[in-house]
Amino acid sequence: MTGASQPQRGGRRPGESGTREAILAAARGAFAELGYDRATMRGIAADAEVDPALVIHFFGGKEALFEAALELPVRPAEIFARGAAAGPDRLGATVVRTFLEAWEPPETRVRLMAMLRSALTNDAAMGMIRDLLVREVFGPITRALGVPDAQLRATLVGSQFVGLAIMRYIARLEPLASASVDELVAAVGPTVQRYLTGEID
Amino acid sequence: MTGASQPQRGGRRPGESGTREAILAAARGAFAELGYDRATMRGIAADAEVDPALVIHFFGGKEALFEAALELPVRPAEIFARGAAAGPDRLGATVVRTFLEAWEPPETRVRLMAMLRSALTNDAAMGMIRDLLVREVFGPITRALGVPDAQLRATLVGSQFVGLAIMRYIARLEPLASASVDELVAAVGPTVQRYLTGEID
Repeated sequence: MTGASQPQRGGRRPGESGTREAILAAARGAFAELGYDRATMRGIAADAEVDPALVIHFFGGKEALFEAALELPVRPAEIFARGAAAGPDRLGATVVRTFLEAWEPPETRVRLMAMLRSALTNDAAMGMIRDLLVREVFGPITRALGVPDAQLRATLVGSQFVGLAIMRYIARLEPLASASVDELVAAVGPTVQRYLTGEID
Repeated sequence: MTGASQPQRGGRRPGESGTREAILAAARGAFAELGYDRATMRGIAADAEVDPALVIHFFGGKEALFEAALELPVRPAEIFARGAAAGPDRLGATVVRTFLEAWEPPETRVRLMAMLRSALTNDAAMGMIRDLLVREVFGPITRALGVPDAQLRATLVGSQFVGLAIMRYIARLEPLASASVDELVAAVGPTVQRYLTGEID
């Protein structure tokens, strides 16, 4: 209403970050309401009142837009790519370290809290996060592992990570909240290693 | 307003279950607002407009009232008592089985959901649950274990249980949601066994 044509702080061209935010807001609404599969780039563009080509320009494709809408501090696929690069014996430790380092910055905790709140108070948001986990986290692990029970293994890792994030970053339960990343890699790394590659039955 | 003096369904004496519920409601408010330590039996009785002796009559002491207010399907201390009774080698498996069996009935999931929602949307409720975990779960384990890092071990177990409950019962992520208790005891038992008694550094 006032100053709408003023340049924004941070020196961005006026409009660009506003457009990006409008697309993200439309995407969050569409993914939450329709789920990943039924939400379309065209529909999200229409909701944001922009040309679909602009959505592609900013975000590439639907998966990348989905991830951007969730504001994760690290792409789940990246976590497991680093684990795989570290070699099979270091898989658990590397995955735990990458996960924790991504969530350590305090500003990411606000997003984690928002995501958990959405999931627990809105079935659609829970569906969106479930989609994310299956598509971005468990799907790639399952394909990469090449072991029996790959999906169960992947969800077991997810259960440890979700619980660790809640207890350390949200409930801030001591001494878990103050433990160093190194301590937690030593403690939880073997759990994840076993879930991914060891005997689980 | 209408029918207040009618006998209640289930044949209870009129007033008794109402009084019990009033005390529980007052207790939930007091624990959430003041935390465990600052909440008093006298204050809770005053809020419920009953004699403090009646609170003792119904619930015994403050810890028992606290647990009743949370409506847990199993006393956390009971989980670990069963684990201890099963012997040191069966500790992890027994604790996981007892935990899962308590949370399997669908009606307990509603309570779990309510508890998590409260914790994530209200700092006081989070404090109440943190108190519960420290007092009822981690305190007893720490004392019973007699190992170094007992508190860290206890919170690691908590992290796995919280994540498992969320993924299985609330997010209902497959195949974790449909796995049998036996399968999960085999998969998660060794994690808990190691957190409680193995090498974690």
